[in-house]
Amino acid sequence: MKRSNFDKSKKSDKSEKSAEAPFALFYRINQAIRDRRLFKPNQRILIAASGGQDSICLIKILNQLKSQWNWQLGIAHCDHLWQIDSFYAASHVSQLAENLNIDYYQCITTKVFNNEEKARLWRYKILEQIASSHDYTAIVTAHTASDRTETFLYNLLRGTGPDGLQSLSWKRKLKSGIRIIRPLLSTTRFELTVLAKQLQMPLWPDKSNQDLFFKRNLIRKQLLPYLRSFFNPQIDKTIAQLAELLHAETVYMENIAALIRIKAHKKDDTIAELDTSILKTLPLALQRRVLRQFLYHEMRYRFTFTEIERIRILYCNYKKVQKVEMKGTQWVMYLHSNCLTISRT
Amino acid sequence: MKRSNFDKSKKSDKSEKSAEAPFALFYRINQAIRDRRLFKPNQRILIAASGGQDSICLIKILNQLKSQWNWQLGIAHCDHLWQIDSFYAASHVSQLAENLNIDYYQCITTKVFNNEEKARLWRYKILEQIASSHDYTAIVTAHTASDRTETFLYNLLRGTGPDGLQSLSWKRKLKSGIRIIRPLLSTTRFELTVLAKQLQMPLWPDKSNQDLFFKRNLIRKQLLPYLRSFFNPQIDKTIAQLAELLHAETVYMENIAALIRIKAHKKDDTIAELDTSILKTLPLALQRRVLRQFLYHEMRYRFTFTEIERIRILYCNYKKVQKVEMKGTQWVMYLHSNCLTISRT
Repeated sequence: MKRSNFDKSKKSDKSEKSAEAPFALFYRINQAIRDRRLFKPNQRILIAASGGQDSICLIKILNQLKSQWNWQLGIAHCDHLWQIDSFYAASHVSQLAENLNIDYYQCITTKVFNNEEKARLWRYKILEQIASSHDYTAIVTAHTASDRTETFLYNLLRGTGPDGLQSLSWKRKLKSGIRIIRPLLSTTRFELTVLAKQLQMPLWPDKSNQDLFFKRNLIRKQLLPYLRSFFNPQIDKTIAQLAELLHAETVYMENIAALIRIKAHKKDDTIAELDTSILKTLPLALQRRVLRQFLYHEMRYRFTFTEIERIRILYCNYKKVQKVEMKGTQWVMYLHSNCLTISRT
Repeated sequence: MKRSNFDKSKKSDKSEKSAEAPFALFYRINQAIRDRRLFKPNQRILIAASGGQDSICLIKILNQLKSQWNWQLGIAHCDHLWQIDSFYAASHVSQLAENLNIDYYQCITTKVFNNEEKARLWRYKILEQIASSHDYTAIVTAHTASDRTETFLYNLLRGTGPDGLQSLSWKRKLKSGIRIIRPLLSTTRFELTVLAKQLQMPLWPDKSNQDLFFKRNLIRKQLLPYLRSFFNPQIDKTIAQLAELLHAETVYMENIAALIRIKAHKKDDTIAELDTSILKTLPLALQRRVLRQFLYHEMRYRFTFTEIERIRILYCNYKKVQKVEMKGTQWVMYLHSNCLTISRT
């Protein structure tokens, strides 16, 4: 029986099934790319690779698919100098790029970052610069469904609002017009481990993934195994799906709230006003978002749930002028009958 | 210094502070009732009491506040016959009602329920009947912020969509017009434990709360203490707030989706149609909700995330007629160019 690589016809022989398994995964990821319109034919795509299992698998997968899409691939490795042996990861990636005949870019930080957030910002900036100067229109990261689940739990446990729960999107446009794309968001880390074994890929453990001091590792190594055993073996998948649903809902809510805020927002040099008579007519969910957007827009400060609720309840229930205390800031906030004003002290 | 019960003026003496503490809690709950307009003056209110700590505290709190609101209180105890000693809980509640001179209603099930959900449905039905026949316009339950957090985690781990995360609202109207009201949703179980000690209330442990076979108890006794220690000591509060935010957002999204579904939904006796050309113009979040509402409305079946996504991707990307497989049901689903139809086989 002749069968194309991505033909998903039924198989009865078990050993044959296992031999076909990597192609089943390639097929599924290709389908996700097509269904979600992640890439275009003939596109120039820059793969961000750390050298870990997931990014090496990503390179293999995109390299497998590139001929049918006629993509031009590039690989970039950003070295944060966090591990003494990070040089080996870089040389492994560059060797792979050479073997596959893919352009390779290497960046090394000039200062060592003391937190993950700063390192991440530097990494994305550098990737955007490389993409921009070499005409790549997409930067691809190897984030998986497992990363999505871990990010969801990380933000949930940190105490975030709904917006924090929707991190990691399939595609996101940067200001430069370049897109960040994550084609593995419905693939689990376990599936990539199986793929790596099937393709006999040489891998070594990332030591920074072992340290339980980092909350993300604690989630991966301790919390998730506990939740799988005692609550739900499918927990990774269901949380990743939930994160995706919440992402779309948050995008929608924020867009609607932004339109209303612009309508209700008046401003001159020293004072900013929000028309609370408009807010009062809105559903609760929109009131909270418009209020939060207005305050963030004026003060660049993210108010807590309790603070937003206090202001909301004040303008809904009390008619006389209220001064809202904002200790330690340079702002004063007043609630008049149909107006919330913020001015500098 | 003369001070009213609910005066929250500043105190310097520590012992005095502790003596005043129950009143600080009464003040805060009274404020929540006023701010959220949970009750009206002169209202007839039925308290659902299990006999556990939280419900006994609820009785004490509402009894403390009733004179200034001129409420008429009643207490109902529903006995599921789950514990051999449930009779003692009932007699404790009835004794308390007698001491406080509050009307008391006792209901005992005629059959023992084998799951919590069925017991809950029975309880709410009985409470509504009592309220209806004795002119109570509100049924009050003793759900706390801690219950909200546990319900959130329970549903999250079970693998729910966003709607499952927003359970337990401050007020909800039943079809009869009677409202379910939960005035303790921003109070933690720990605060009630402190109150019970301060008021020297006699309490005994509910044995069914100890059994780790029940997932809810596992969350309370094992998961939450672990999360508090290793991730965030404030986790209970932040999750309860998140549940409240998600509740409002889901209510809003569902209402908008319902309006659109009605517009896009055509129906006769044997066939139901959804106009997918309307769906295609909608933001992703609304597409998913309208589609799910339509399918639930026609088939009374809650489709999974994966099923909804499959249908959505089919009508977005493919123009020729598609038959959507629905194994084991009496329904057939077809996607034509601008139409999703469901008909009975």
